[in-house]
Amino acid sequence: MVRVSELSRHSGVPVATIKYYLREGLLPKGEATSATQAVYSETHLRRLRLIRALVEGSGVPLTKVRAILDALDDTGVDLHHLLGTVQYALTPETTPTDTPEWREAERNTEELLARLGWRVSPSSPARPRLTHAIATVMGLGYQVGPRTLDTYANAAHMTAERDLDRIDPAAPRERAVEHVAIITALMDQMLVALRALAQEDVSARRLRGTDARY
Amino acid sequence: MVRVSELSRHSGVPVATIKYYLREGLLPKGEATSATQAVYSETHLRRLRLIRALVEGSGVPLTKVRAILDALDDTGVDLHHLLGTVQYALTPETTPTDTPEWREAERNTEELLARLGWRVSPSSPARPRLTHAIATVMGLGYQVGPRTLDTYANAAHMTAERDLDRIDPAAPRERAVEHVAIITALMDQMLVALRALAQEDVSARRLRGTDARY
Repeated sequence: MVRVSELSRHSGVPVATIKYYLREGLLPKGEATSATQAVYSETHLRRLRLIRALVEGSGVPLTKVRAILDALDDTGVDLHHLLGTVQYALTPETTPTDTPEWREAERNTEELLARLGWRVSPSSPARPRLTHAIATVMGLGYQVGPRTLDTYANAAHMTAERDLDRIDPAAPRERAVEHVAIITALMDQMLVALRALAQEDVSARRLRGTDARY
Repeated sequence: MVRVSELSRHSGVPVATIKYYLREGLLPKGEATSATQAVYSETHLRRLRLIRALVEGSGVPLTKVRAILDALDDTGVDLHHLLGTVQYALTPETTPTDTPEWREAERNTEELLARLGWRVSPSSPARPRLTHAIATVMGLGYQVGPRTLDTYANAAHMTAERDLDRIDPAAPRERAVEHVAIITALMDQMLVALRALAQEDVSARRLRGTDARY
């Protein structure tokens, strides 16, 4: 059991921020040792590290942090639904547009998911997000055919299998939540960087002229 | 040959913006028909559509648009290097940090590229971008091992092969440049959305409890 100053030192979160989280109910109260003092346990430290990873690492707004923490504390929510709550909270919202491209793109999204047999909730915010990307490409006069979508989907699935390998169902639930929060933002960035490197490699093999410059 | 008003209608770019691009030299001058009038060809329309795709579609600053257009017009630059110019212009710059995590992450990036035998220029801005993502994950106390990196790299390479399938070396160079500009931004978004959907599918298969709710 430690005082708030030590909790701050161990977590790297300033005392003023810890007090704010306590007032907002994001962090449970410590055990009172006097009228103005309280002590905090390992549980507080884990929770604090998680809030920090969500807020600083992934830029999650505090209202969504609260929804995640509620799901975390609700033992009626299984790990699958807990991770879904985190992922949905981290996915930017997409507003559908009433255009022919949107409707065609939405059909592409639905057909792709049906073709692959993926188990995805109708309420997943990643559905309109995918539709938006396809509709934007179409709006610029390009087609996104089933072959492209299938290739991308298979590649995405390979990385998702690996992501889930890294989730230990026996570990504390906080750990899994923190992990998903990190996967969603940073592993996406990693993959985007690797795509740029891979594009250069494929281009070098296929398109490089006779000049020996890089 | 069409007047500026028709060029605006065909391209969807306002006349004032077209005149700005003409003044800035991003768009070549039309053929003068009088002291105050000029007409424009199919070449102008193609160029204008490209500038629009770069600026509006991908948010490229005008100085970088100019670098891309210069490479496009320089027939001494082969298609591989032209596409590289576009990709590098579209990649956000990453500032290296002097931390142990950065150095370890940089070693991971270099070892990965060597292990895979990818042909990537030492000056590619995607190298520090990948290093930054790995270093950030490490800074949060997680490891990014070779198995994870290899899985992600293989997935990235699959999508890159497909991206290059869609480049026609016989088409006008503008078309290839426009294509890469779109691939880099929108296909990244598409893959990120597909990753979220794939993660939900894998999680549903592995982690879903006995409750039948979605």
